Amino acid sequence: MATDRKSIRGGVTAPLGFRASAVGCGIKDASVERLDLALIISDEPVVAAATFTTNKVKAAPVRVSALHLRKSNVKAIIANSGNANACTGPQGIADARTMARVVARQLGILQREVLVCSTGMIGLPMPMARIEPKIPDLVQRLSPRLANGSDVAHAIMTSDTRPKEVAVEIEIDGKPVRIGACAKGAGMIDPNMATMLCFITTDAAIGKAELQRAVTDSVERSFNRITIDGDMSTNDTVTVFANGASGAKRITSGTKEAEKFTKALTHVMVKLAKMIVADGERVTKFVDVRVRGAATYHHARLIAEAVAKSSLCKCSWNGEDANWGRIMDAIGYSGARIREETIDIYFDGVAAARNGMAADTPVSKLRAVVKKHAFTINIDLHLGEANYNVYTSDLSPEYVDFNRSEYSMWKKAQIEGTENDE
Amino acid sequence: MATDRKSIRGGVTAPLGFRASAVGCGIKDASVERLDLALIISDEPVVAAATFTTNKVKAAPVRVSALHLRKSNVKAIIANSGNANACTGPQGIADARTMARVVARQLGILQREVLVCSTGMIGLPMPMARIEPKIPDLVQRLSPRLANGSDVAHAIMTSDTRPKEVAVEIEIDGKPVRIGACAKGAGMIDPNMATMLCFITTDAAIGKAELQRAVTDSVERSFNRITIDGDMSTNDTVTVFANGASGAKRITSGTKEAEKFTKALTHVMVKLAKMIVADGERVTKFVDVRVRGAATYHHARLIAEAVAKSSLCKCSWNGEDANWGRIMDAIGYSGARIREETIDIYFDGVAAARNGMAADTPVSKLRAVVKKHAFTINIDLHLGEANYNVYTSDLSPEYVDFNRSEYSMWKKAQIEGTENDE
Repeated sequence: MATDRKSIRGGVTAPLGFRASAVGCGIKDASVERLDLALIISDEPVVAAATFTTNKVKAAPVRVSALHLRKSNVKAIIANSGNANACTGPQGIADARTMARVVARQLGILQREVLVCSTGMIGLPMPMARIEPKIPDLVQRLSPRLANGSDVAHAIMTSDTRPKEVAVEIEIDGKPVRIGACAKGAGMIDPNMATMLCFITTDAAIGKAELQRAVTDSVERSFNRITIDGDMSTNDTVTVFANGASGAKRITSGTKEAEKFTKALTHVMVKLAKMIVADGERVTKFVDVRVRGAATYHHARLIAEAVAKSSLCKCSWNGEDANWGRIMDAIGYSGARIREETIDIYFDGVAAARNGMAADTPVSKLRAVVKKHAFTINIDLHLGEANYNVYTSDLSPEYVDFNRSEYSMWKKAQIEGTENDE
Repeated sequence: MATDRKSIRGGVTAPLGFRASAVGCGIKDASVERLDLALIISDEPVVAAATFTTNKVKAAPVRVSALHLRKSNVKAIIANSGNANACTGPQGIADARTMARVVARQLGILQREVLVCSTGMIGLPMPMARIEPKIPDLVQRLSPRLANGSDVAHAIMTSDTRPKEVAVEIEIDGKPVRIGACAKGAGMIDPNMATMLCFITTDAAIGKAELQRAVTDSVERSFNRITIDGDMSTNDTVTVFANGASGAKRITSGTKEAEKFTKALTHVMVKLAKMIVADGERVTKFVDVRVRGAATYHHARLIAEAVAKSSLCKCSWNGEDANWGRIMDAIGYSGARIREETIDIYFDGVAAARNGMAADTPVSKLRAVVKKHAFTINIDLHLGEANYNVYTSDLSPEYVDFNRSEYSMWKKAQIEGTENDE
């Protein structure tokens, strides 16, 4: 069945009936020209599903969007990078609403039919004076061209070094159905229900309950399995818009088509999730931590996450050092049930530890694996049947350097001339 | 009452009736000369209490020592740095037992009266051929001199840049009573019941139950409140030996003397805990994260630990950047009950955020605090009466660099000439 899913070009405008655009407003810094405000709209009515951050500190746009999703059939998303509109109080809520209202007015739709997503610095007021005047231009540029979807992928980037777009095509009852997506990541990546920003469009016809089920499932197998720095963002949002424009028959629960659609959606999300880790801030390694043989799924997950988040494990991968003792240490403090004496650890299938002790593999063989850009760590507990995996990265001196100083600099860039502050 | 506690010189040999010594065996690297094997003994019978790591992967000496403590009245400790004797299987247990047996035979005491503590690299076999022959010399050098206590503090260092010794004197019923201690830390520091190695001696007379209560209390207020890298070691041990050699009357539960003794013990542990954080691997900042106004003690703790462990908060402190948005983010994902709108954040009393939003303090004023070597972050939730604090450090590019490569190098140093491995 997997064979009739094919990769296609483009992102959010790859499915039929979606238009997109992006403009530059200088949100982060008035003097820097880059795309930082994006719009996606479906011409047809949309069935929407979403997952939001579980961080209790929620950005204003997350609050506004969650309300709009509950109250209405949304059909458009306005998104910006450069400012998270988080910890901005009542003014932040007013600004998020204004973004929805102005774009809705231009589009001739209702304010509550528009979702708002923001990503960037926490705690700075939105430069609405630079954003609002650009919205007519944003609406003017709307187009179904693939290049416009790509503009959106560029406009939501912050510390990302490359845009992240995926699109696939499947067949539902003989008719082609497309799923297109873009995402941004790079920092504050530690998933819980959803992480980062990800916009997915599809021209499939599908009911709301079945779409939400597919989204929740797919997020659990993708974005909830990645970690870069262990910090979970205030703005994480994954949205999926399904508009039925393919003309294919409606996907209903429990059918072969529902399964095929969910698999394709999971495939799209896993691809984006891996792209996010691979483009993590100053990352040099992509590491798949796979735990098997755990007593329960929960225990397998505890171990995979402890290893994937351990500063010392991540430092050793950066140093291309097969330091399996640090992996054992993290397994030990993960909280999972283990028996030290039955634990095996492999790097790409090469044994580093057997029965909780050093295997007799020469260090040079292990080092050859850790020198690769991407490798897998297999941890076998020999206690049961449960498995779990997490995609993660190394921790580099450059990551720390990159994240040393931000607030003072950004604040200075944003308020220049407006406040008596150095 | 605090006024009659005074700091005195020395460490574990400051109290009466304790002798100590240290020698160099080249445990980590045969070609490097430094003290790495230490011995502490009480001439009088000892009442002992201890806390051990809660990591489920436990080093061989932790297993052996816990057994000896349960079965016997211990009176001596042999400790080494350079090799953790962890993940070393049955041979590791045999080696730890051999260390206890050989030292006991030399001292004319029972094997089970000796505790064994090791710290260093995980997963390498103990170089017993270099350790055993040095034990007679170690016993020969035993002396109650303050310098010998100091030798022990040096001998247990790994990545520590300076030894950590504390001693105080209090009065119990008119007689002077002393508490002396040394500790090692620097890396894999994230406490749970106990962390790192810490040896404490006292010439107080005290019952076992009361001593254990005092130790558990003091550990909870000191070593359980520090974090450097969030990785919890396999070898953590805190031991307290009380030998009654002061001649002061026996301290019993619920008395003024018991309170005074516990306070002094807590003081010693907090001082060592702070020294450990301040000497964390490549640390440049000492940060006291204080949470107040939480609904419960548990919630206050969740928040203090989330902020203290956040990679992004730690990076910003390294960059001397008052990025309070990252603190808000960590508060939000800590799992604690909060109301974003009532959260205030201060840096050494200077408001960074009020009511969940930026305070109107100029950035330059906040930056002046973060530029200091040590500062306090106060987080007020305005929800209740519960408080908690954690001592932590920044995360530096140099920390990552320092921890990039270790295993290959150490393994090479240890096995040179013995195996056909690069």
